[in-house]
Amino acid sequence: MSFKDNTISFPELIKLKRDGGQLSPAEIGTFVHGVTSGDIQNSQIGAMLMAIWQKGMTGEETVALTREMMNSGETFKWPKEWLVVDKHSTGGVGDKVSLPLAPALAACGCKVPMISGRGLAHTGGTLDKLESIRGFNVNQSVEQVKQILEDVGCCIVGPTENLVPADRVLYAIRDATSTVDSHPLIISSIISKKGAEGLSTLVLDVKFGRAALYKDVDSARRLAQSLITVGNKLGVKTGAVLSRMDSPIGQSVGNAVEVCEALECLKGRGSDDLKELVTNLGGHLLCMCGHSCTLESGKKEIALKLENGEALKRFEAMLMAQGVSADVAHSLCSNETDYFKHMKRAAHQTELEVPDNGAVLDIDGLALAEVLHKLGAGRTKSGEEIDHSVGAEILNLFLHQFHRLQPWNINIQAFKIHQRLQLFYTK
Amino acid sequence: MSFKDNTISFPELIKLKRDGGQLSPAEIGTFVHGVTSGDIQNSQIGAMLMAIWQKGMTGEETVALTREMMNSGETFKWPKEWLVVDKHSTGGVGDKVSLPLAPALAACGCKVPMISGRGLAHTGGTLDKLESIRGFNVNQSVEQVKQILEDVGCCIVGPTENLVPADRVLYAIRDATSTVDSHPLIISSIISKKGAEGLSTLVLDVKFGRAALYKDVDSARRLAQSLITVGNKLGVKTGAVLSRMDSPIGQSVGNAVEVCEALECLKGRGSDDLKELVTNLGGHLLCMCGHSCTLESGKKEIALKLENGEALKRFEAMLMAQGVSADVAHSLCSNETDYFKHMKRAAHQTELEVPDNGAVLDIDGLALAEVLHKLGAGRTKSGEEIDHSVGAEILNLFLHQFHRLQPWNINIQAFKIHQRLQLFYTK
Repeated sequence: MSFKDNTISFPELIKLKRDGGQLSPAEIGTFVHGVTSGDIQNSQIGAMLMAIWQKGMTGEETVALTREMMNSGETFKWPKEWLVVDKHSTGGVGDKVSLPLAPALAACGCKVPMISGRGLAHTGGTLDKLESIRGFNVNQSVEQVKQILEDVGCCIVGPTENLVPADRVLYAIRDATSTVDSHPLIISSIISKKGAEGLSTLVLDVKFGRAALYKDVDSARRLAQSLITVGNKLGVKTGAVLSRMDSPIGQSVGNAVEVCEALECLKGRGSDDLKELVTNLGGHLLCMCGHSCTLESGKKEIALKLENGEALKRFEAMLMAQGVSADVAHSLCSNETDYFKHMKRAAHQTELEVPDNGAVLDIDGLALAEVLHKLGAGRTKSGEEIDHSVGAEILNLFLHQFHRLQPWNINIQAFKIHQRLQLFYTK
Repeated sequence: MSFKDNTISFPELIKLKRDGGQLSPAEIGTFVHGVTSGDIQNSQIGAMLMAIWQKGMTGEETVALTREMMNSGETFKWPKEWLVVDKHSTGGVGDKVSLPLAPALAACGCKVPMISGRGLAHTGGTLDKLESIRGFNVNQSVEQVKQILEDVGCCIVGPTENLVPADRVLYAIRDATSTVDSHPLIISSIISKKGAEGLSTLVLDVKFGRAALYKDVDSARRLAQSLITVGNKLGVKTGAVLSRMDSPIGQSVGNAVEVCEALECLKGRGSDDLKELVTNLGGHLLCMCGHSCTLESGKKEIALKLENGEALKRFEAMLMAQGVSADVAHSLCSNETDYFKHMKRAAHQTELEVPDNGAVLDIDGLALAEVLHKLGAGRTKSGEEIDHSVGAEILNLFLHQFHRLQPWNINIQAFKIHQRLQLFYTK
């Protein structure tokens, strides 16, 4: 008599988690391998993700899931002497921090192999923003990334074909199955990719507030603590900053309009809250990786690189290294501010103005993002085209004493007072 | 400005159920329509099924789900004067009741358009059993079914292509995602198919015990009550019998061996417990549909049809109507008992004998079924080939005072005492 083999089947794995059981590292390995190889059916992935959403995962399970995902494809290896750092944000409205931060860190001597994503739903992706610039190519091979890091010090690219392939599958299915907001799934998705980048140090910008995944600071703090634990267990020195996400970051939301604001920031101008986030996150990284002695000196160094044009030079070099023509890169990074010579301008423009005796006391970032999403700035399904020209600019800030964050979880609330909101759209 | 349309998306539907919300009939309609049309992704179906498994469904939701599934394809219409009845079992080891019951009911003047399934996991399917017989064709069109019902009175067929297509998709995914044992999913799957058969009366054989889906009688009773409620709401007069499922029904488990036992029953011989189930379920149906005045007279009429050969004649006619040659049908239904002339015989045979001074007091139906499954009698994945010759026979019953059921939920436990168990297999 020959019996069929007795390794655990996918339905049995799902049943274990369905009933609230703890999966062993080997069982999690079986699941992730099935996802990567395509042996497990999409329906089974959907059911498993929902079971994980419902029943959660222990710390051990989350570490095992993250490790298996990280090792599902290639992982980057860098020269030992490099100080390889990165920042990850859990997603905010108007969050263009990566654009000035990566070149500022490069100007400090760090290497920043920033692997970003595209936007889904109301939060735009860094890659989408950069693709507003004519010629910018987010697809770079491992060899190209290494060359750009050697030459420029930073790049902002999409995931290479074989980087954490399990996450590519799981992320798309999480989005389709309403299983995005599950701690173990969020943590494994973020940290597996950062681990595969071969970082020495990582800072996380964990958002909370009405326009963030987590509305309250305590939920965000719990997520941050788990992210830090799992990151460190996987060998990446990991820290986190909690930042408030109620109204948009800075003065622009969209794709092309956010590039403009990032360029302004790189020229030492622009919103204080954006600059504060950039210097704070960068300062933490410089301090954590041992480049700076204190957080304050780290922040100062980042601020200096924004003011003295060194960050801007790195950004210009990065644009050229990633396919933008020298003319365009130079023009964007010059004293000129007519950025729309090199990016698509929206066909229509509507100004929403408050009456003379009124003032906008507050802007709901999520509501604004959802309007822009419906106007074409965001995508509902992975792979959809988006309209880079769609966006909003918040004009005439009268008072701007808003402190978006304080290091390590102290938050001061205040109001931005605006007078006008400008919407860009094409249809 | 043109906004994208605002109908509920599949991820939003999943989120509603994920969070324990109640879906409206329209929302359930959207889901079932998506399943039938293929617009909803398999990953989303898997996640929704797991969410339903975790959060359950209200009575209203279950009725709406069942109705939408029933109407997802064609539904049968029969001449008004026909008394169209059927039986459905929730699945038992060695359950060959349908084979003698359908022709016995036909011999009483009922019409029995029995649409059965194939086996998955440890319980064999009625279609698989019948396919042990050379030439038997389970695929019959609606027109053919109608003709057979007119000529013979009963048929046992697979679902036609367009009968409850939503269930075909959901059933396969439930099996793959460990979401089989969920009341609303069980109920909607069973009743939608029976509703689409155009029945006037349905009796359910709801199993409980160590070899059944539900181990205790209370769980089975709750399921039975929900099945009855939903069946009646969909216009089918529905009743249920609870029956114990610890040890195998009758003396055989497998495919070909169960056909042999069914033929014995049709010839007025064989196990008492099998005969009891057949006459009881049939008696309930005859009584419920108004053919008999009392349960007792209904049972007597079924027993008479088994004893006087009228049921056997209907079975023979059904075999021929469904593709079996007259020679084979006649031989199987004659006084001969060498049934394996017309069915594949297993290459090997092993007898498990108890020592002289011992006796088998009990047989664990589930354990036996799992052994046979691994020997090839069952399938692990839908569409897999099975080996019809694999099976087990329980020999030398010394004492047989086991009452498997009493009408309406009274159960008497006793033991079968066997001396030998015979296993058939080919590899």
